[in-house]
Amino acid sequence: MHLNPIQLFDTESSTFTYILAVPESTDAVIIDPVDRHWERDLRHLERLGLKLAWVLETHAHADHITSAGKLRQLTGAKAAVPGGCGIAPAETQLNDGDTVQFGSAETIEVLHTPGHTAGSMSYVWHGNVFTGDTLLIDGCGRTDFQSGSADALYDSVTRKLFALPDDTRMWPGHDYKGQSVSTIGWEKRHNSRLANRSREEFAKLMGELKLPKPRLIDVAVPANQNLGLPHGG
Amino acid sequence: MHLNPIQLFDTESSTFTYILAVPESTDAVIIDPVDRHWERDLRHLERLGLKLAWVLETHAHADHITSAGKLRQLTGAKAAVPGGCGIAPAETQLNDGDTVQFGSAETIEVLHTPGHTAGSMSYVWHGNVFTGDTLLIDGCGRTDFQSGSADALYDSVTRKLFALPDDTRMWPGHDYKGQSVSTIGWEKRHNSRLANRSREEFAKLMGELKLPKPRLIDVAVPANQNLGLPHGG
Repeated sequence: MHLNPIQLFDTESSTFTYILAVPESTDAVIIDPVDRHWERDLRHLERLGLKLAWVLETHAHADHITSAGKLRQLTGAKAAVPGGCGIAPAETQLNDGDTVQFGSAETIEVLHTPGHTAGSMSYVWHGNVFTGDTLLIDGCGRTDFQSGSADALYDSVTRKLFALPDDTRMWPGHDYKGQSVSTIGWEKRHNSRLANRSREEFAKLMGELKLPKPRLIDVAVPANQNLGLPHGG
Repeated sequence: MHLNPIQLFDTESSTFTYILAVPESTDAVIIDPVDRHWERDLRHLERLGLKLAWVLETHAHADHITSAGKLRQLTGAKAAVPGGCGIAPAETQLNDGDTVQFGSAETIEVLHTPGHTAGSMSYVWHGNVFTGDTLLIDGCGRTDFQSGSADALYDSVTRKLFALPDDTRMWPGHDYKGQSVSTIGWEKRHNSRLANRSREEFAKLMGELKLPKPRLIDVAVPANQNLGLPHGG
């Protein structure tokens, strides 16, 4: 059964943050919160009568700084992060196949989907998949820095994400065109980078993108590896 | 039970559009679609495997033009609009207490909530209320033009919307601060314009706002009264 998350947006970095909750419980999970929106996000939890159980990160972001550490401090939530991202202070280092439990009977399944970064994880919950920067709506994350690999991303998407049921709702980590949600079935048939492309075609396409270096990467990645908290702080 | 809608945003007018659907059916309803996003909205329906049954308007908007007519033409959906808004071409003119049915067993309840405009409606569905410009998160719509009335808005909010269960999720027609959703209980306790204020205090506050005339009002209202289609077209 589909239970849509609450979707929040950061206009500066076009990042989506998600709040997951079910009617039967006041426990909530937040995925990929953004530093400057910590008050907005806490206000949403307060207004909805929710208590934060977990902060999840899909990877160590290069384009914005997480508020995971701050939310953890302020709410008592725990942080669960991809084991391969070097995010040392988190309570839980996640590996492929792990689960995160919250509420009375909620289970989030953890899928290791490397390619944008070597550690990137996707999270599956109630007919939804939160793909971070691995799979975007009609696109995908870049693979040319921070341990990225077009080869790994191709496998993650075509073997793991496209193996989910077609009607799985796909909630990306970013969107730059005002889109909110897609489905695995649609992306499998129509994603302009990954549908009906060979591994070689995809690698060639990604190799030719010649994207500029992310403006914030040298600040953001070390900060995010400390859950967005000042080092030594 | 709460079933979150899909929430879409127009950055130019800060307008929210909502897609309502349930897992058991492919029927969907869209509330307050915006002209320039008709393709985006159709793509969402397509990606989610949904068929548009109804286009609903909360009122005749003054700050943007609806795509209701266009979506109706392209999908075969019907338009249901507030009876008091002069939106003549719609199939269904809604009155307080009416219901809109879709899917196998979905019912949207219609609440007449005048004040922002005399015809404004709110829509109640599955523990959610879509309030248009009557009640905003920590705010409310203006009441100084287009048959608006602070007195009517005060009654609509305090007697009708605040009478809904406290945990009803409140989805506004606009937000200007990156907020997505609130609850009736929170707004009843904390809304800075309407919580714990007398009718007289509220009327005084609204009378002193001195807001500029909406830039698009002379174009948008007549266009929206024709479901956003060219007159004579």
